[in-house]
Amino acid sequence: MRKVLVIHGPNLNLLGEREPNVYGSTTLEEINQALQEQAKKSDVELKVFQSNHEGELVESIQNARHWADVIIINPAAYTHTSIAIRDALSAIAVPTIEVHLSNIHARENFRQASHVSPVSVGQVVGFGKNSYLLALQAATLIPLSGSKK
Amino acid sequence: MRKVLVIHGPNLNLLGEREPNVYGSTTLEEINQALQEQAKKSDVELKVFQSNHEGELVESIQNARHWADVIIINPAAYTHTSIAIRDALSAIAVPTIEVHLSNIHARENFRQASHVSPVSVGQVVGFGKNSYLLALQAATLIPLSGSKK
Amino acid sequence: MRKVLVIHGPNLNLLGEREPNVYGSTTLEEINQALQEQAKKSDVELKVFQSNHEGELVESIQNARHWADVIIINPAAYTHTSIAIRDALSAIAVPTIEVHLSNIHARENFRQASHVSPVSVGQVVGFGKNSYLLALQAATLIPLSGSKK
Amino acid sequence: MRKVLVIHGPNLNLLGEREPNVYGSTTLEEINQALQEQAKKSDVELKVFQSNHEGELVESIQNARHWADVIIINPAAYTHTSIAIRDALSAIAVPTIEVHLSNIHARENFRQASHVSPVSVGQVVGFGKNSYLLALQAATLIPLSGSKK
Amino acid sequence: MRKVLVIHGPNLNLLGEREPNVYGSTTLEEINQALQEQAKKSDVELKVFQSNHEGELVESIQNARHWADVIIINPAAYTHTSIAIRDALSAIAVPTIEVHLSNIHARENFRQASHVSPVSVGQVVGFGKNSYLLALQAATLIPLSGSKK
Amino acid sequence: MRKVLVIHGPNLNLLGEREPNVYGSTTLEEINQALQEQAKKSDVELKVFQSNHEGELVESIQNARHWADVIIINPAAYTHTSIAIRDALSAIAVPTIEVHLSNIHARENFRQASHVSPVSVGQVVGFGKNSYLLALQAATLIPLSGSKK
Amino acid sequence: MRKVLVIHGPNLNLLGEREPNVYGSTTLEEINQALQEQAKKSDVELKVFQSNHEGELVESIQNARHWADVIIINPAAYTHTSIAIRDALSAIAVPTIEVHLSNIHARENFRQASHVSPVSVGQVVGFGKNSYLLALQAATLIPLSGSKK
Amino acid sequence: MRKVLVIHGPNLNLLGEREPNVYGSTTLEEINQALQEQAKKSDVELKVFQSNHEGELVESIQNARHWADVIIINPAAYTHTSIAIRDALSAIAVPTIEVHLSNIHARENFRQASHVSPVSVGQVVGFGKNSYLLALQAATLIPLSGSKK
Amino acid sequence: MRKVLVIHGPNLNLLGEREPNVYGSTTLEEINQALQEQAKKSDVELKVFQSNHEGELVESIQNARHWADVIIINPAAYTHTSIAIRDALSAIAVPTIEVHLSNIHARENFRQASHVSPVSVGQVVGFGKNSYLLALQAATLIPLSGSKK
Amino acid sequence: MRKVLVIHGPNLNLLGEREPNVYGSTTLEEINQALQEQAKKSDVELKVFQSNHEGELVESIQNARHWADVIIINPAAYTHTSIAIRDALSAIAVPTIEVHLSNIHARENFRQASHVSPVSVGQVVGFGKNSYLLALQAATLIPLSGSKK
Amino acid sequence: MRKVLVIHGPNLNLLGEREPNVYGSTTLEEINQALQEQAKKSDVELKVFQSNHEGELVESIQNARHWADVIIINPAAYTHTSIAIRDALSAIAVPTIEVHLSNIHARENFRQASHVSPVSVGQVVGFGKNSYLLALQAATLIPLSGSKK
Amino acid sequence: MRKVLVIHGPNLNLLGEREPNVYGSTTLEEINQALQEQAKKSDVELKVFQSNHEGELVESIQNARHWADVIIINPAAYTHTSIAIRDALSAIAVPTIEVHLSNIHARENFRQASHVSPVSVGQVVGFGKNSYLLALQAATLIPLSGSKK
Repeated sequence: MRKVLVIHGPNLNLLGEREPNVYGSTTLEEINQALQEQAKKSDVELKVFQSNHEGELVESIQNARHWADVIIINPAAYTHTSIAIRDALSAIAVPTIEVHLSNIHARENFRQASHVSPVSVGQVVGFGKNSYLLALQAATLIPLSGSKK
Repeated sequence: MRKVLVIHGPNLNLLGEREPNVYGSTTLEEINQALQEQAKKSDVELKVFQSNHEGELVESIQNARHWADVIIINPAAYTHTSIAIRDALSAIAVPTIEVHLSNIHARENFRQASHVSPVSVGQVVGFGKNSYLLALQAATLIPLSGSKK
Repeated sequence: MRKVLVIHGPNLNLLGEREPNVYGSTTLEEINQALQEQAKKSDVELKVFQSNHEGELVESIQNARHWADVIIINPAAYTHTSIAIRDALSAIAVPTIEVHLSNIHARENFRQASHVSPVSVGQVVGFGKNSYLLALQAATLIPLSGSKK
Repeated sequence: MRKVLVIHGPNLNLLGEREPNVYGSTTLEEINQALQEQAKKSDVELKVFQSNHEGELVESIQNARHWADVIIINPAAYTHTSIAIRDALSAIAVPTIEVHLSNIHARENFRQASHVSPVSVGQVVGFGKNSYLLALQAATLIPLSGSKK
Repeated sequence: MRKVLVIHGPNLNLLGEREPNVYGSTTLEEINQALQEQAKKSDVELKVFQSNHEGELVESIQNARHWADVIIINPAAYTHTSIAIRDALSAIAVPTIEVHLSNIHARENFRQASHVSPVSVGQVVGFGKNSYLLALQAATLIPLSGSKK
Repeated sequence: MRKVLVIHGPNLNLLGEREPNVYGSTTLEEINQALQEQAKKSDVELKVFQSNHEGELVESIQNARHWADVIIINPAAYTHTSIAIRDALSAIAVPTIEVHLSNIHARENFRQASHVSPVSVGQVVGFGKNSYLLALQAATLIPLSGSKK
Repeated sequence: MRKVLVIHGPNLNLLGEREPNVYGSTTLEEINQALQEQAKKSDVELKVFQSNHEGELVESIQNARHWADVIIINPAAYTHTSIAIRDALSAIAVPTIEVHLSNIHARENFRQASHVSPVSVGQVVGFGKNSYLLALQAATLIPLSGSKK
Repeated sequence: MRKVLVIHGPNLNLLGEREPNVYGSTTLEEINQALQEQAKKSDVELKVFQSNHEGELVESIQNARHWADVIIINPAAYTHTSIAIRDALSAIAVPTIEVHLSNIHARENFRQASHVSPVSVGQVVGFGKNSYLLALQAATLIPLSGSKK
Repeated sequence: MRKVLVIHGPNLNLLGEREPNVYGSTTLEEINQALQEQAKKSDVELKVFQSNHEGELVESIQNARHWADVIIINPAAYTHTSIAIRDALSAIAVPTIEVHLSNIHARENFRQASHVSPVSVGQVVGFGKNSYLLALQAATLIPLSGSKK
Repeated sequence: MRKVLVIHGPNLNLLGEREPNVYGSTTLEEINQALQEQAKKSDVELKVFQSNHEGELVESIQNARHWADVIIINPAAYTHTSIAIRDALSAIAVPTIEVHLSNIHARENFRQASHVSPVSVGQVVGFGKNSYLLALQAATLIPLSGSKK
Repeated sequence: MRKVLVIHGPNLNLLGEREPNVYGSTTLEEINQALQEQAKKSDVELKVFQSNHEGELVESIQNARHWADVIIINPAAYTHTSIAIRDALSAIAVPTIEVHLSNIHARENFRQASHVSPVSVGQVVGFGKNSYLLALQAATLIPLSGSKK
Repeated sequence: MRKVLVIHGPNLNLLGEREPNVYGSTTLEEINQALQEQAKKSDVELKVFQSNHEGELVESIQNARHWADVIIINPAAYTHTSIAIRDALSAIAVPTIEVHLSNIHARENFRQASHVSPVSVGQVVGFGKNSYLLALQAATLIPLSGSKK
C-alpha cells in the first residue's frame, strides 16, 4: 500500500470561490475528496497539505521523508521562485510528481521556468482537477527504488 | 464609507529607527497614525498590517477579499521576488495601489522590476511618508466597480 | 465513443532497440499495443502514426481535422524546432495533449522550450510508456466543445 | 507660494477626443482646468505646457530653471526614448515629479523603462486625471532645498 | 474617392541627389509625381508631406485624422526610434501602410525592429520607388471600416 | 514574357477552410486563380507550388533556377526556422519576393525574425490575398539582371 | 568579548542525515557544538539560529541589531532569491560574513548569484564544517567600528 | 575493412554548378568520386547519400546503425536547426565526423552554433573538397569500440 | 582654406551656467570664441550651430553638404538615440569628427553606445573644451578626398 | 608537514604602497611574513610567488605539481580573464584555495565571474590580509587524497 | 617544399604526463616526433614552438611571417581569450589552420567561442594526436597564393 | 617640463610593414620620431615603450608611477581583454589618455568594449598617426593635480 503526500502551494485555498471563469468552480476541498476516493480504489494511503508559506511547504516536504513513497506537489507561485522547495525535494529520496491546474506554458513568460521540474520525476499540467487525479495514478505506477534524479 | 487595508512588507517595521539618513526618521507607527488621521477626515475605515513573512502577506490579502474596498500595499523587498503576492492580489477583486517610500527607479537594477505593478491600478513612488498619504487619497478616488486589471 | 489520434515524432521508431538504459526496453510497438488495449477498455477509437518527417507530421495533423476528437502528440525533437507543427495544431479545432517519455526539463537547455505547449491543452511528461497511457486517460476526460486555446 | 510647471508630452493634445474607452473622455483642457482649480486652493502658481516636439520639451524644461519650484511632467512616448529630456531635467536644479495616466507597467515591454524616473523625485502612475492632481499635491509637500539627485 | 496621405520621414528630402548607387537617382519629387499620376488613375485624392522633425511627423499624423482614409508612411530613421509616431498612429483610426525603399532586413541590426509595424496594416519593403506605388495600390484595396489594430 | 514561380509554404493548403475569422474565407485555390488572372493581364507565365515539406520547398526552389525569372514565396512557418530554404534561395540567381498574408510584425515574438528576408529583394506583408497580387505586380517591375543580394 | 550570531538557512536542519555523499555525515548539531567549543577558546559569546522560513530569518537578523557584534550567515537556498534578507542585513549596522558548505561556484548557474554577498564583509565558501569555523575566526578579526558597506 | 557512410545535407546537390566563386567549381559528383578513390586505397567500403529532406537524413542515419562503422556528415543548413538529426546520431552507436566545406566560423552568426558538434567525435571545417578527404582519413584512425559521446 | 562646421547638440546651450562642478564653468560662448581664435590661426573658416531639436540638427548636417569640408559634432544626448542624425551624416560626403566634453565611457551604460561613431572618422572624448580644440586641429589634418565610410 | 604554495597575481606587488584607503597599508612583504609566521606555527612548509605575467603564473602552477600539497592563489585581475590559469590548475592534482583581499562581489560586474572558482576547493574573500591567513588555515584542514574537482 | 610552423599554446607541455584518461598518454614530444616523420614523407620543412605566454605566441606568429608558408596552431586556453593572437595572425599573410585535441564543442560553454577561427582557413578538432597530423596534411593541400581571409 | 610615457600594445611593432592598405605605411619608428619632435617643441620629456606581453605592459605602467606625469596608451588587442592593465592604471595616480589608430567603433563588435576607457581621462580615436600627436597635445593641457578617476 503506497503512501502519497499531496502538497498544495499558495493561493490554492481560494480555489473555486473566486475567478471561476479561469480556474473553474471546483474547490480545493472537492479536489481533496476526489483524490481520497481515488486513493481508496487504488489502495493508496493519502495525506493532503496546503500552505501559503514557503517555509511550511519546505518542512512538509522534509517531514515526509520517513513516511511518503511519493510526493505530488502543485507549488503554484513558488514553482517559479523557490529554490528552497527544490532543495528540500532534492534532499530527500522521495520521488516527486509536479502538477499544475492550468497550462502554465500558455501563460506569462515568468511562469515558464520551474525550479521543481528538474528534480521531479515528471509533470502533469493543464487538466484542472484531473491533473491531480492523473498524477495520483502515475504515483502508483512509478518505480520507487530508483533515485529521484 | 470606503474600507481600505494598508499592508506594509518586510523590514518596514524598522522604519525610523535605523538609517535615518536614507529613509528619514519617521517611524512606521507615525506613518500609521498619519494614515488614520487622514482616513478620518476622508471618511475612510482603515486597517493596517505589517509582516516580514511572504505567507502572512499573502493571507492578509486573501482575508481582505470580503472586507476591503481598496488595498494599499508597500511590498518592499517582496515587490521584486514574490509571485505569490501577485497571484493573491490577482485572485481577489479588490483594486490595489502600490506604494514605495524611496524612488526605486533610481536604485539597483534588481529593484526595477515589480511583480505587483502589472496587477495594481497604479503606483505612488518616492515621496516617503507622503507616498502613503497620496495613495490613501487615490484610494478614495478610484472607481470600485471595474475589474482590477 | 471518442476518436483519438496518437502521433509519434522523429526517432521514436527506434525505441526499445537502442539505448535501453536511457529510454527503457519498451518498443514503440509495445507502447502502441498498450494504448490499443487501454483504448478498448475506455471505449476509445484509436489511430497511431509515426514519422521522422516534419511535413508528414504536419499533414497527419491536418488530416485528423475531420476525424479526431483529441490528438496525443509526442513531437520529440520537433518539439523545440517546428513552428509548422504548432501552426497545424493551431489551425484545426482538435484539442491536443503533449507527451514526453523522459523529463525534458531535467535535460539540455535547448529541450526546455516547446513550440507545442502553448497550443496544447496540457502535458504529461516523464513517465515513460505511462506518459502515453495517462494522456489517453486525459483524452477521455477533457471537454471537447471548448476551443483548444 | 510655490511655482509649478506642468509639462504634457506628445499626443496628449488628443486626449478625450479619441479612444475614450482607453484614456477616458476627459480632455487635456479639462485636466488643465482641474489643475488650475486645485492650484488656487493650494496657493500654487501654475503654468502648463504641451508639445509634440522633443526639442520644445527640452527647452520648456530649460526655461523653467529660473521660475519653477517644481516640475510635473508626463513625458508620454518620450519617457522611453528621450535622453535629451533626462539630461535637461538633470541639468537644472528643479525637483521633478513624473506622471502617467495609464498604468504603464501593465502595458508593452518597451513602456517599462523610463529615462525620466531615475532623475525624478517620484512617480504617480495609473490614476488618469487624478495622477496629475495627486502629483500637484505632492508638489506642495516635497522639500525644495535638497538637490534633485 | 479615397483620400490618402503619404508621409516621408527624415533625410528622404535628399533622395536622388546623393548616394545614387545606394538609393538610386530618383528624387523625392519624382516619387511624388509618380504617386500623383497613379492617384489620378486610381481615383485617389493624394496629399504628400515630408519632414525631418519627429514632432512635425506626429502632428501631420494627428491632423490627418479628420481627412485621410489611409496613411502611407516611410518613417525612415524614426522607424526604429520613435514611439511618439507609433502612438500618434495608434491614437487615430486611420489604417496605415508602412513603406521602405531598401530592404531593411538585409541591413544593420538596429534597422530590424520597427515601432510602426505592429500598428500598421501591412508593409511594402525593398522595391525602391515602387514600394510607394504598390502601397498606394494597396491603399485602394484595404477595407476602411475595420479598426487599425 | 516574365516567368514567375509562386511558392506556398506549410499549412497554407488549409486556407479559407478553417479559422476564417483570422485568415479570411479565401481559399488557396482562389488565390491561385486570382494570380493566374492577373498574370495573364500582365503577360506573365505563372507556376504555383504548395508543400508542407521543407525539403520539397528547397527542391522547388532549386528546380526553378533554369526556368523562373522571379520567385514569390510565402514560407509560412518555415520563414522563422528554415536556413535550408534561405540557402536554396541564396544558391540560385533568381530574385525573390517574400509574402505574408497577415502582419507578422503584430504577432508572437518568434514570428518577427525571418531567415528569408535578408536574401529576398523585398517583402509585401499584411494585405491577405492582395499581398500575393501586389507581389506579382512587383515581380513585373524589379530589374532582373542585378544579383539578388 | 565579541558577540556572534550564527544563522543557518533552509534545509540545513537535515544536514548529516541525508545525502551524506554530498554534504558529509556531519549534522547541524555537531557543527553548532564545534562552533561553541571554538567560541569558548576565542572568548566569543555565540548564539545559533536555524529556520526554513524567510520571514523568521529576516526577524532573527532584525533582532540581532541590539546584541550581535558580527553575524555569520549561511542563507542556503535564500542566498539566491531573498532580497528581504539582504535588506534586513543592510538595515542594521552589524558586519556580516557569508558562509557556504559546498563550493557553490562549481554548481548550477542559478547558484552563482548571491543577494547577500554585496552587503557582507566577506565570504568563506566550500570547506564544509570548516567554512563555519574559519568564519568564526574571521569574526574575531574584522574591525567592528566601520560601516558594513 | 571499415564501412563508412558519407551523408550530404540540403543544397549540396547544387555544388559546382552555381556560385563557383564561393564554393568552387567542384561538383558533388566529383567529391564522391574522389572519396571513392581514396576509400579504395584505404581499404574502406564507402556509401554516399544526399538529401534535402531532414526526415530522409534522419532515416539514413537510423539505417546506418547495422552497417556503418563511421558516419561522415555535412549537415549543411540543418547543422544549425535540426535536433532530429542530432537525436538520430545520438541514438545509434556509430561514431560521427562533422564536415563543412567553408569556414562556417567566419560567416553569419546563425551559422556558429551546431547541434551536431556535441554528438560528433570531431570536425573538419573549411578545406573545401579536402574537408571530406581528411575526414575519411580520420575515419580510418578513430577508435571504434568506445561510445560516441 | 578648409571650411569646418561645428554642431552642438541638446542642452549644450546651458554649459557653464549650471552644474559647474560637473561640466566646468566654461560657457558655450567661450568654447565658440576659442574655436574661432584657433580657426583663424589655422586658416580655417568656421561656422557654429547649436540646437536642442533633432530635426534641426539633421537639417544643419544636410545643409552643410555643399559648404563644409569637415563636420565636428557633439551630439550630446542624441548620440545614443538618433539614427536620423547618423543617416544624415551617412548621406553626405563630409568627413565627421565626434566630440564629447566628458568621458562618456566612465558614465552610465546607456551612454556607452553611439550611433554616430561608426559613421565618423574618429572621436575626441573627455578633455572638456579641449576636446573641441583638438578636434579642430584634427579637422585640418584628415584627408578630404576619401569617402567617409 | 604539508607543503603550501601561495601565488599572488598581477599588481599585488604594489600592495600597501598606493591606494592605502582602498587596499590598506599592508604591503605584500608583510602579508608574506605573516604567512611564514603562521606556517611555522602550523608546521607548514611555505613558498610564495608573485608575477604580473599570466604565463609565469601558469608555469608556477605547473611546477608545483611535484611539490605542493595545496595551492593558495589570489589571481587578481586574471581571475576574470584567464582560462589558461584555470586549465593549469585543472591539469594538476593539487587542491587549490582561491583568495581575494576585497569583497569582489560588491564591486564592478566584470569582477563577479571567476574562471578559478569552479576548479578550486573553496574561496576566502573580503578579509584583507586575513583572507590569506584563513586560507592557510584551511589548507591544513582540507583532505589531500581526493581529486580536486 | 612547403614550410610549416606548428604552435602549441599554454599547458600543452604537460600533455601525456597527467590526466591521461582525458587527453591520452601521448606526450607533446611524441606528437612533435610524429609530425616530423610525416613532414619528411610529405616533403615539408617543419618547425615547432610551445609557450605558455600569450606574448611569446604573438611573437612566434610575427616572426613566422618571412619564413612559414602555413601555420598550424592549437591556441588551447588562449583560443577563447586572446584577441592579440588573432590580430597577429590577421596581420601576417600566412594561411593558418586551427587544431584542437578534444572536441571543444562538447565541453563548457566558454570553450565554444574561438577568436582564432574567423581568421583561420579551417579547423581540425577532436581527433587527439591525429588532429595535428590531419592538419599537416591539410597544410600541404591548401592554396598559398590567396589571402588568408 | 611634463614627463610623458607613450605605451604601444601588441602587434604595433609590425606597423607600416604589413597591411599598409589598412593601417597606412607609417612605421612605429616614424610615429615615435614624430612624437619626439613634437615633444621637443612642446617642452615635454618623452619615453616610449612597446611590448606584445600583457605582463610587461602592466609593469611598464607600474614603473611609470614615480616618473610620468601623463601616460598615453594604445593597448591594441589588450584594450578589450586586459583587466590587469586596467588595474595597473587604476592603481597609480598618473592620468592616462587612450589612443587608437583606427576607428574601433566602426569595426567588429568585440572591439567596442574597452577596459581602459573608464579609467582614462579621455580618448583620441581614428586619426592614425595623428591620434598619438593629438593625444600628446592633450597631455600638455590636462590638469595634473586631480585624481585620475
